[in-house]
Amino acid sequence: MSVLVVGSTALDSIKTPHAENPRLLGGSASHSAVAASFFAPVKLVGVVGDDFPKQYIRLYKRHKIDLQGLQILPGKTFHWSGEYEVNMDNRRTLLTELGVFETFTPTLPKEHQNTEYVLLANIAPSLQSHVLDQMRRPKFITADTMDLWLNIALKDLLALLKRVDCFVLNESEAHQLTECTNMLKAARAIHKLGPKYVIIKKGHNGAFLSGPNGLFVTPAYPLESVVDPTGAGDSFVGGMVGYLANKPGPIERNLRRGMVYGSVIASYCCEGFGLSRTTKLTRAQIEKRVKELRQVTKF
Amino acid sequence: MSVLVVGSTALDSIKTPHAENPRLLGGSASHSAVAASFFAPVKLVGVVGDDFPKQYIRLYKRHKIDLQGLQILPGKTFHWSGEYEVNMDNRRTLLTELGVFETFTPTLPKEHQNTEYVLLANIAPSLQSHVLDQMRRPKFITADTMDLWLNIALKDLLALLKRVDCFVLNESEAHQLTECTNMLKAARAIHKLGPKYVIIKKGHNGAFLSGPNGLFVTPAYPLESVVDPTGAGDSFVGGMVGYLANKPGPIERNLRRGMVYGSVIASYCCEGFGLSRTTKLTRAQIEKRVKELRQVTKF
Repeated sequence: MSVLVVGSTALDSIKTPHAENPRLLGGSASHSAVAASFFAPVKLVGVVGDDFPKQYIRLYKRHKIDLQGLQILPGKTFHWSGEYEVNMDNRRTLLTELGVFETFTPTLPKEHQNTEYVLLANIAPSLQSHVLDQMRRPKFITADTMDLWLNIALKDLLALLKRVDCFVLNESEAHQLTECTNMLKAARAIHKLGPKYVIIKKGHNGAFLSGPNGLFVTPAYPLESVVDPTGAGDSFVGGMVGYLANKPGPIERNLRRGMVYGSVIASYCCEGFGLSRTTKLTRAQIEKRVKELRQVTKF
Repeated sequence: MSVLVVGSTALDSIKTPHAENPRLLGGSASHSAVAASFFAPVKLVGVVGDDFPKQYIRLYKRHKIDLQGLQILPGKTFHWSGEYEVNMDNRRTLLTELGVFETFTPTLPKEHQNTEYVLLANIAPSLQSHVLDQMRRPKFITADTMDLWLNIALKDLLALLKRVDCFVLNESEAHQLTECTNMLKAARAIHKLGPKYVIIKKGHNGAFLSGPNGLFVTPAYPLESVVDPTGAGDSFVGGMVGYLANKPGPIERNLRRGMVYGSVIASYCCEGFGLSRTTKLTRAQIEKRVKELRQVTKF
């Protein structure tokens, strides 16, 4: 079955202590869609300006991503620029130019409205809800978010949470949303806001799932060096939902495995700037690290 | 087979945001020895003053801990006092009274010199080495440490590392010792200092093992609330070595399982002040959480 991915499609200028790369393909929808494409057909919903490099359109197409829902509007593509500190854990935003993203309204082509799996990648929660308004009975809805929306659009986010099956956020966002420092308590509080499944991302410490059948913890794939962590969280959730869409069987078992596949794609994402490593991935390379993670957690 | 545990035997006065408990039984050797006692016979080597409460001697004895190596000297028992912040992750030392610990030299009774498994719990590395000097060909030597020894006794610690099979430390100590922020690189650097097995503790994010057959990652047992984390790391390593001593078979497989058992004892340790919860544990309660951890990591 296929996956509809909505989110940001952007140009990222990224600076790390070791290198600087301007105007790479980025955005939550780009990372999530490419990650999901290794497992299932993907339909992308987003917006870019008329400055959007053709090579990035070709990149999407190489991953067989359906671009009917990608609006190309007169104006500039959303541009984000950020810088990482030495330990790669902390980053600061240097610049945000919204461009055509400022007035973006995601409109689904008719063919997209029946998609079974929906990934609402990080974007304003009102737009995430607007996508759901246009859909007919999707099988499984996953939403990601970021701290910005907790700060400026909490009401919209709370309205969205009532409508999603699975909500993904990181530790500090979970803390901010629930005021709980303990992540089990935070997950329980988030369940009360709507989602049956809550996934809390912990960066290089992995991620955990809270669902009706209890908890699941996956480590991150252990990496010796990180080139650029931008998009790792988006790759994680994209890989996970892509895996889900491709697997029949109980959703919770598949979610666990999907999280492991997502962690693996995220690990590869960190090994190159932007999407440069992810886009060269093979299914065999993915399976290799999944097998290694199985070995790493076996006792 | 049995375990020799050397380390500190102390009275801990512990303050948390919710309660305050003076002069509890504490110290690295106390926590490690009680944790190990659930799996194997334990011989304790340490020192206390003549003020040491009889009830704590009885507590050791209830755990069938051999006290031939526990010196009782005229003077005061080592007393540590500390306070935890709200999130229980950070603590500060309020007071340290060394008492009889100041001039402690661990001397092994003859019967102890053939013990197969040695746990050098946190204590000055020169004393850890002094214990090894008195032993005949132990089967497996594990050493724990703390940041203090990295600061004031690095040379002694480096000398010790050449003699141990397994070295256990936490993330910040690994960073301090190796100057690597990446924990895989840190583990590799520590292998070069001697130990075949390196275990890096990450608190509520679990622990990982680096050894000849690769990596192993165990999550911490997920807890909703922590009453007092004092001694959790000592309980982890004590439970692990106790499990090892009780299991025939390949050391690395047993180390993995031992780490899981250690995590479980550490989780119980956090649920009461000092040793109050640990000392009431049953084997069935331990096995229950091990089973849950198996479920939590299964995919």
